[in-house]
Amino acid sequence: MDKTEVLRFVSKRKTAFLASVDESGYPVVRAMLAPRKIGDGELFFSTNTSSKKVRQFLADGKACVYFYRRGLFKYRGVTIAGEMEVCTDQPTKDAIWRFGDKLFYKQGVTDPDYCVLKFKCKTAEVYCDLKTETVEF
Amino acid sequence: MDKTEVLRFVSKRKTAFLASVDESGYPVVRAMLAPRKIGDGELFFSTNTSSKKVRQFLADGKACVYFYRRGLFKYRGVTIAGEMEVCTDQPTKDAIWRFGDKLFYKQGVTDPDYCVLKFKCKTAEVYCDLKTETVEF
Repeated sequence: MDKTEVLRFVSKRKTAFLASVDESGYPVVRAMLAPRKIGDGELFFSTNTSSKKVRQFLADGKACVYFYRRGLFKYRGVTIAGEMEVCTDQPTKDAIWRFGDKLFYKQGVTDPDYCVLKFKCKTAEVYCDLKTETVEF
Repeated sequence: MDKTEVLRFVSKRKTAFLASVDESGYPVVRAMLAPRKIGDGELFFSTNTSSKKVRQFLADGKACVYFYRRGLFKYRGVTIAGEMEVCTDQPTKDAIWRFGDKLFYKQGVTDPDYCVLKFKCKTAEVYCDLKTETVEF
């Protein structure tokens, strides 16, 4: 797999598993909806500014995003290590806003509790059929 | 939810998402088969002694295990923080060995590349319907 194939695989998944490191040094995992936008080695997620993950990423940007597919005979998993940036600027917020988000952010696209997590991919580990390969971004 | 309900929820999941922290301080997530055994606030997984996760947990036992269920209308996620112990002693290895494991560990239950990850639950965060509750173990 190369970078493009990794991002193509990512673009087909419905769920992302996002990990941060908390203030005590423990990893923290939670499921997220698929990235809203996939750029050149960057994944964009929407989230609540008041959430724990935002607090954790502001203190330590080191992050991991995991995607997997469980086929009938074949399992594939992609673990991507990288840096997370919390974006509260309006252009970035505008770029990934969707109409339905009003349900979660009452004030709409300018809601201060709506922000964007921008993940910069560094290294991906692709696991398939008991074999692992590394892809650098 | 209380401790027992959290472990009951865990016992019904087929996949666990396990996170460690690597030597550079990055969280690392990977999917695992469901725990082989669930004890009193402890989850047991089988794995390869030579795997990266074992190396990471020997250096830093801080761990997270995540489980989720996506229902038709309802999503539920459980993030458990705790300590991981790598067990290579024969009684622990015997306790969770299954016949089919021979496929992965040619030397059987005494294979030095077969070991057990014993996760001691500390705190669970249960997410359901946009609400979060904390359960202490």
